[in-house]
Amino acid sequence: MDDAAGLAIAFKEAKKSYEQGGIPIGAALISSTGIVLGRGHNQRVQLDSPIHHGETATLLNAGRLPASTYANSTMYTTLSPCDMCTGAILLYKIRRVVIGENSTFKAAGEDYLRQRGVEVVVMDDQECRTLMERFVRESPGVWWEDIGVVGEEKREEGR
Amino acid sequence: MDDAAGLAIAFKEAKKSYEQGGIPIGAALISSTGIVLGRGHNQRVQLDSPIHHGETATLLNAGRLPASTYANSTMYTTLSPCDMCTGAILLYKIRRVVIGENSTFKAAGEDYLRQRGVEVVVMDDQECRTLMERFVRESPGVWWEDIGVVGEEKREEGR
Repeated sequence: MDDAAGLAIAFKEAKKSYEQGGIPIGAALISSTGIVLGRGHNQRVQLDSPIHHGETATLLNAGRLPASTYANSTMYTTLSPCDMCTGAILLYKIRRVVIGENSTFKAAGEDYLRQRGVEVVVMDDQECRTLMERFVRESPGVWWEDIGVVGEEKREEGR
Repeated sequence: MDDAAGLAIAFKEAKKSYEQGGIPIGAALISSTGIVLGRGHNQRVQLDSPIHHGETATLLNAGRLPASTYANSTMYTTLSPCDMCTGAILLYKIRRVVIGENSTFKAAGEDYLRQRGVEVVVMDDQECRTLMERFVRESPGVWWEDIGVVGEEKREEGR
């Protein structure tokens, strides 16, 4: 599967989340032979969960996999990974990460992944960016909460 | 709450998981005023989940919290955090982490937390170590899987 096709699966997940009233970040874990091992999206709103991000929800949906399967797979994600998802990728030694865009959000994760030997590709995808920009404009409070950047007042204000 | 009391709550969670046939790693998120915001344990076995580690399960059980609450809390964990849990702590800007022991497992997380400004205290707790050593001896395959270090063959062998 080429990277555009992999990212398209992640984007479908992001759109699904947006349509559910959730944060539009999606991901997919795809083997080197093109098997979709898992796919998922952020579920902060849907499950009131601070740990179901696009990438972690994807790992959960992929189930318990042997280390060799993770090592030969690529994580596709619509948005540059947060620290938690960066860590999840490192824990399971996923060697390649394809990112839709990193202009609406970029944490330390991308550089840390590279530093730890992970191949990181940024697609600079317009569709991913447009959806994310729209969400941040519509629901800034939920978004701030998701990236842990502000306190209670800001959160209330953004609601 | 003093650190020994906080760690005791995390250890109770670890024991609960062990009694359920799961991986005995527990955690608790406790505010600076002593409120237990959340507690949880590894649920790889119980939920077939690769993302419910002690610390992430604790964050999930604590629910959606404002950034200011995370910032004024301490994460207690029976074992040195893996990369994913390290990342979760960084995402939510939890400023203090108290670790039961780091002799049965120590990833890059501890140093990375310190590098990113988190206060890390290692208690070198004998009770945490003994329980973890027992589990690794009894169920090496599940343990290897949890820290993503080996392939399918080793996993089967360990079962």
